[in-house]
Amino acid sequence: MYSFQQIQELVDQQFNSLDFVKEPTGLYDPIEYALSSKGKRIRPTLLLMASNLYMQNLDNALNPAVAIEVFHNFTLIHDDIMDKADKRRNKPTVHKKWNLNTAILSGDAMMIKAYQFMHKYQGVNASLVYRLFDQTALEVCEGQQYDMEFEEMKQVGEDQYLKMIELKTAVLLACSLKMGALIGNAPENEAEALYNFGKYLGLAFQLQDDYLDAFGDSEVFGKKIGGDIVENKKTFLLIQALRKADKSQKEKLNYLLEKETDEVRKIKGVIEIYNELKIPQVTEDLIREYYDKALKAFNSLNKTENEKKNLRHVAGKLMDRIH
Amino acid sequence: MYSFQQIQELVDQQFNSLDFVKEPTGLYDPIEYALSSKGKRIRPTLLLMASNLYMQNLDNALNPAVAIEVFHNFTLIHDDIMDKADKRRNKPTVHKKWNLNTAILSGDAMMIKAYQFMHKYQGVNASLVYRLFDQTALEVCEGQQYDMEFEEMKQVGEDQYLKMIELKTAVLLACSLKMGALIGNAPENEAEALYNFGKYLGLAFQLQDDYLDAFGDSEVFGKKIGGDIVENKKTFLLIQALRKADKSQKEKLNYLLEKETDEVRKIKGVIEIYNELKIPQVTEDLIREYYDKALKAFNSLNKTENEKKNLRHVAGKLMDRIH
Repeated sequence: MYSFQQIQELVDQQFNSLDFVKEPTGLYDPIEYALSSKGKRIRPTLLLMASNLYMQNLDNALNPAVAIEVFHNFTLIHDDIMDKADKRRNKPTVHKKWNLNTAILSGDAMMIKAYQFMHKYQGVNASLVYRLFDQTALEVCEGQQYDMEFEEMKQVGEDQYLKMIELKTAVLLACSLKMGALIGNAPENEAEALYNFGKYLGLAFQLQDDYLDAFGDSEVFGKKIGGDIVENKKTFLLIQALRKADKSQKEKLNYLLEKETDEVRKIKGVIEIYNELKIPQVTEDLIREYYDKALKAFNSLNKTENEKKNLRHVAGKLMDRIH
Repeated sequence: MYSFQQIQELVDQQFNSLDFVKEPTGLYDPIEYALSSKGKRIRPTLLLMASNLYMQNLDNALNPAVAIEVFHNFTLIHDDIMDKADKRRNKPTVHKKWNLNTAILSGDAMMIKAYQFMHKYQGVNASLVYRLFDQTALEVCEGQQYDMEFEEMKQVGEDQYLKMIELKTAVLLACSLKMGALIGNAPENEAEALYNFGKYLGLAFQLQDDYLDAFGDSEVFGKKIGGDIVENKKTFLLIQALRKADKSQKEKLNYLLEKETDEVRKIKGVIEIYNELKIPQVTEDLIREYYDKALKAFNSLNKTENEKKNLRHVAGKLMDRIH
């Protein structure tokens, strides 16, 4: 079995060995650029760990792991256009550094590159692997579509919101784990359990992100507190607050959202209402519920604690920003 | 063997049976819309005809045929954004009818749908089929990138231009034919001959398009004469003319391109210079050269004239606008 450290080295080695430098450089340089700010590479890590539960040599899993990370980074390039984001991982986004057309076309080429890596895998369950990837990729697009639609809506339901973050964030984590299992030729029920583990972990993680924007320690969180509040982003917290607020709280909230121009007063005011309405507790409860579901799926795996320790460690790390 | 008519019916039936109506409709309606203005569906037609040379039942070839056409229509959506085109097949383009973000995201989803259709094919040479598709899809992006870069360049070489149209247009036609052959388990040299047939046919066709813009009969051509000239589009004709013009012709040409505001005078003046420089003859010669290469590859196929008559008919139809 690979150690946590070894898996990370394997992922990094694999990405360091990639070479996207090719003519026309106007098309390929932005792909190289997008992948050079590496992020956590959580998806390939999860894929390899899941495979490692069922097979000892991970060579066959490397290309699918790369494929998923390349796909994820492609979605970031196109999402950043749609969200008009200027920065990504502290660097200018592709459409800012180059331009709109480059960001569209290099993104397209990057998605095709993802498929090229995926098709290098021709081992067991290859056709299930491809179909899982297609299905998940479409769901990620659906999630982004809902996210954009919600921005234009006055009211978004709790269920709608949870479905959106499931599609936009959770299914690709779930897919990474299930794909790793399929490549390792795991029993069907174990592959499904790993999918659910990833899905609920993703939901818990995204809710935690919403929570930390208002109630986190900015040092641990790594972002400024209140960013979502300033932007009127329809997070789980705001959706809950708008639903639970009484008449006077709703008036106050709407004033803060629509009229308050002082950022500090706006953040302070909104957090005050969140606290009055016990939004932190409600959110923590739901995060805990999802995390428990994730662990339940994880614990159902017919594997020793030692075999599972890498994945348990990653799950813990993803969640330890809050508790 | 299927008749020409039967192949076309098969393609149309296949597309009529597709159903893209699904939630979120904001994502899927534009896909339905883009595919509803059907165009000539030349690529799936070529694919099925190539398969039919080597197998009698075309059921297995239907999904790849759909995949290629869906992919082609995806490229049109994103190209129309990049080219700022308002109309496509006499209807508003997706980014005009909806908006930029919709055109980006629905296009992305459409490319994934193309892969979903492709992966339904799991017959002989499946992995070669997937890899051919990936490679070709990347080349189409490279062609679009060169096309955009050429717009910003003062001078484009003849070879550069021919490489660009090969990537942007010819390789997908070539791919359609070769893929049909792979699905029919054709001998490797026959699959390659069909690829070259499609590539040279595509090059001849695109050059013919450039030629007809200036020297065509607008009724047969289906577009207004001189559109490329008005837009200063770097066609094969203009590239040749700029290369061959003497000092005074170059001055006159540059005046027409940069200063002449009257469209009729501009078109008339540029065509006059084209004629002085014998550009029509040079272009016709190259079209003929490519067409001959296409036919040479085609004639090398080890098939009876009767078996080949559908493909010969399509090739003839593609080229008969000029001679």
